[in-house]
Amino acid sequence: MSRPAVHPVEAPPLSIDNGGGDGAPPRLRMKDFQGMSGTLGGLLLRIFQSFFALASLLIMATTSDFPSVTAFRYLVAAAGLQIIWSLSLAVADIYAILVKRSFRSYRVISLFAVGDGIISTLIFAAACSSAGITVLIGNDLDSCAKNHCVQFETSTGMAFMTWFAALPSFLLNFWSLASR
Amino acid sequence: MSRPAVHPVEAPPLSIDNGGGDGAPPRLRMKDFQGMSGTLGGLLLRIFQSFFALASLLIMATTSDFPSVTAFRYLVAAAGLQIIWSLSLAVADIYAILVKRSFRSYRVISLFAVGDGIISTLIFAAACSSAGITVLIGNDLDSCAKNHCVQFETSTGMAFMTWFAALPSFLLNFWSLASR
Repeated sequence: MSRPAVHPVEAPPLSIDNGGGDGAPPRLRMKDFQGMSGTLGGLLLRIFQSFFALASLLIMATTSDFPSVTAFRYLVAAAGLQIIWSLSLAVADIYAILVKRSFRSYRVISLFAVGDGIISTLIFAAACSSAGITVLIGNDLDSCAKNHCVQFETSTGMAFMTWFAALPSFLLNFWSLASR
Repeated sequence: MSRPAVHPVEAPPLSIDNGGGDGAPPRLRMKDFQGMSGTLGGLLLRIFQSFFALASLLIMATTSDFPSVTAFRYLVAAAGLQIIWSLSLAVADIYAILVKRSFRSYRVISLFAVGDGIISTLIFAAACSSAGITVLIGNDLDSCAKNHCVQFETSTGMAFMTWFAALPSFLLNFWSLASR
C-alpha cells in the first residue's frame, strides 16, 4: 500500500469505462428524453398509438363495404401492423421501467428508430389515401347517402391520430441515435 | 518571448474557441455529410426534387378533369410548394458551393430541417391520396376508359419520386442537427 506522498499533478483519466469490460470499446451513455423508448413518456406514446390504431381498425372493419376499396383494406392492414408493433414495444417499455433501466444499446435504438420510421410512414400513407377517398366520396361525388361516410371519416381521423402519436416516437429515437 | 525552459506537464486546453468571438458561446463545428445543405450531394437532391415535382405538376395540370377531384388539386398545390422550396434551397446551395462554405449555423440548419420535414410530409400526403384515388378509379371501379388514368398514375409516381428525393434531405439535416 505504498503511495508517493507528493503527487503534484493528477493525470486526467484518458478513457471512461462504464462497465463494458471484456475488451469491448467503452460504451457512450445516451441522454434520456421523456418519450423515447424505456421511459414513461415512451410507454404513454405506445399506448396512444395502439389505442388509436385499434379504434381506426375497428371502426373501419364494422362497415360492410370497406373491402370494395383498396385504400380502406390497406388502412386495416396498416392499423393491424401498428397495433402489433406498438404493443410489442409497450411490453418492452414496461419491462424497462420495472427494472429501472433504459435502452442504451445503439443497435436496439436503431432498430426502434427504423421500425418506427417505417410503421409510421405506412400508417400515414394509409390515412392519406383513405382521406383522399373519403373526400372524393363526400365532397366531390356527394354520395354520402349510399356510403358509410361517418365511419370512413372517423376511421381516417383515428389513423391520423395514430400517426401523430407515432411521429414523436420516431423523431425522439432518431434524435437520440444521432446525438449519442 | 520568454518561455520557461522546463514545463513538465502541459495542461490540456479546457475550452475550444473556434472563432465565435464577441462573447458568444464557442460554436461547435458540424460534420459535413454529402447530401446535407451546402454540399454538392445536397444540391443534386434539390435538383431532383424540383425536377420530379415539376414533372408531377405539369402532367397533372395537362389533364382536363383534375380539378374535379380534391386530392389532385392538392397534389398540384403541394408540388408547386415543393418546387418553390427546393429551388430556393438549390440557389442557397449553389452560393454555398461557390464560396466554398457550408451551413454551420444551428438556426439555419433547424430552419432547413423543419421546412424539409413539413414540405416532404405534404408531398407524401398528396402522393398517397392521389394514389388512393388512382387505384380506386383504375382497379376498384374499372373506369379508366373515361378517365386519364395514365396521366394520373404518372403524376402520382412523380410525386412519390419527389418524396424519395426529399426524404434524405430531411433525414440528413435532422441528423446533423442532433449530432452537432
